[in-house]
Amino acid sequence: MARIALDAMGGDFAPEAPIAGALQALAELDAAHSIQLVGQTSVIEGTLSKLLAGEYAGAAAHRARIEIVEAPDVIEMTDKPTTVRKKPNSSMAVGLQLQADGRSDGFVSAGNTGAQMAGSLFILGLHQGMTRPAIATLFPTARKPVVVLDSGANVDCSAAELVQFARIGAVYAEDMLGRSNPSIGLLSIGEEPEKGNAVVKEANQLLAAAGLNFQGNVEGRDIPRGESDRGALDVVVCDGFVGNVLLKFYEAVAPTIMKMLAGALQLDRETAQKGIGALDYAEHGGAPLLGVKGVSIISHGRSSARAMKNAVKKAVQAAESRMSDHIGRRLAESEEVQA
Amino acid sequence: MARIALDAMGGDFAPEAPIAGALQALAELDAAHSIQLVGQTSVIEGTLSKLLAGEYAGAAAHRARIEIVEAPDVIEMTDKPTTVRKKPNSSMAVGLQLQADGRSDGFVSAGNTGAQMAGSLFILGLHQGMTRPAIATLFPTARKPVVVLDSGANVDCSAAELVQFARIGAVYAEDMLGRSNPSIGLLSIGEEPEKGNAVVKEANQLLAAAGLNFQGNVEGRDIPRGESDRGALDVVVCDGFVGNVLLKFYEAVAPTIMKMLAGALQLDRETAQKGIGALDYAEHGGAPLLGVKGVSIISHGRSSARAMKNAVKKAVQAAESRMSDHIGRRLAESEEVQA
Repeated sequence: MARIALDAMGGDFAPEAPIAGALQALAELDAAHSIQLVGQTSVIEGTLSKLLAGEYAGAAAHRARIEIVEAPDVIEMTDKPTTVRKKPNSSMAVGLQLQADGRSDGFVSAGNTGAQMAGSLFILGLHQGMTRPAIATLFPTARKPVVVLDSGANVDCSAAELVQFARIGAVYAEDMLGRSNPSIGLLSIGEEPEKGNAVVKEANQLLAAAGLNFQGNVEGRDIPRGESDRGALDVVVCDGFVGNVLLKFYEAVAPTIMKMLAGALQLDRETAQKGIGALDYAEHGGAPLLGVKGVSIISHGRSSARAMKNAVKKAVQAAESRMSDHIGRRLAESEEVQA
Repeated sequence: MARIALDAMGGDFAPEAPIAGALQALAELDAAHSIQLVGQTSVIEGTLSKLLAGEYAGAAAHRARIEIVEAPDVIEMTDKPTTVRKKPNSSMAVGLQLQADGRSDGFVSAGNTGAQMAGSLFILGLHQGMTRPAIATLFPTARKPVVVLDSGANVDCSAAELVQFARIGAVYAEDMLGRSNPSIGLLSIGEEPEKGNAVVKEANQLLAAAGLNFQGNVEGRDIPRGESDRGALDVVVCDGFVGNVLLKFYEAVAPTIMKMLAGALQLDRETAQKGIGALDYAEHGGAPLLGVKGVSIISHGRSSARAMKNAVKKAVQAAESRMSDHIGRRLAESEEVQA
């Protein structure tokens, strides 16, 4: 059983979206799992009562699996990341602290991403062998989804950090996607090991000697294909600048392609709208911040109730699979840490 | 009138694709324009005769606007970029030299891209004020196409080089796309000037003081949208690593999205295939190497005859608009060069 702390105050549609998402998640999850709604008790109680009296009347039976955890302060979207240290009574800090104290098994927020990263780092801490955490995002592909990391936690990464990302991305692919011996690619501008910028060229050499199932360099085209010419891909490693540019590009490309297709295929307006809906990857839930000791799922600021439900389910899966413990063990076994 | 030198030996489908592309281009271009087919005379004559006797019988009238220029050597796709200096009698080197000698107005090749970049640099030279050339690619968007540069000529770029790319990208948008006072964005991971890696943060400051129509930082999502929250975009500046990853990602994403759509919209196989065809951006022709003194259009290795036709037409437009002269003048007027 997993206890997931959910930031009830975070996100563009808070508190409704996270609280409704909690009710949706409880309806779908095994009865052993519970949710801690973290935030201003009066606000949470009011919203919960409203939802249970209306659209979510059928979810009343799940109310007993919700605990409300008081957190009087709120971190705004415009606050600096370090605000999380100055506001220990914010929903973000309180939610993470529950986990650090062993009273929760995972944290989910659609609030200020910078503050969530900083808070996860300060409150949960990093596994030995990590110098920075990384955001791992699932990219839909023509085959199975591919894990891309880092997709935005860091801008300038060292070659050694890219190797760390490969190790922890592989554990994510194993525990969350059920891939065995995940195949790892290093994002570059050519397949040959000598192609790429200075950091990528060095990382290619380190990865080849890291004892991982390393495919070598892969190119931008291999991500949507879900495979390179050397086989199926499970994990693609890149720095957080490139990963974030790609993620935002991918999220926005659907309406453009739909418009081009609607013209070429003479689709009607309704069909085109349906197509855009089918391509809304943001609905697929949140992305874990990997490398920290625990579970911290970062959701999009504009997450709907459905996206929050999916993020909570992802947190449960991460907690149940003991992904963070496996990451710690894998890093401890790696040569970099033993050396 | 423009004389365009076309590398008849370059590309996966050479010599057929470039020679057929030349015939298609001549049929569509004003009669004042001519093409120089550069390569092994016997091979070119044989292919030309075969095409004119068969599929291109209707193009016989255009034969007079084709000059065959002998170049006995060929640069292979696997050759190193510097091979172009060791093979001065290759179709690549001879084609570029024609322009340096004032006997041609533009060069097009689907051959070895590295060799074409090196050859353009050695033989045509760089405009004063440039330290590296950049490949400018058109990205289709939900609005008008956006010029993205550099999309692959350089991996590590300095902030000053990103400013150079902004200047020459603006001239491209003016001369080739008819945009007046082009709006320029700097690709980053957030709109605020302090967001980005070290080079991007420095470039943001330099660009704000460069006398350009600089919008500030833009994000990955703004490229397919064709606009940021601050208005329409004409030019997006980034280093060649990010630009190349994005370009290849975009080229490959259509089949993935089509597959997801085909499921969601229950499209039949034929419609899906038609959709993929409509999204084949590679057909849109080549990308100019900007910053060199002259016109050098880089085409995809797997260019079809239609893609080569489009590349030749692009070369004619670049020559006729005197884009390279305008780039030289714009750079000379800039503070960086005057200082």
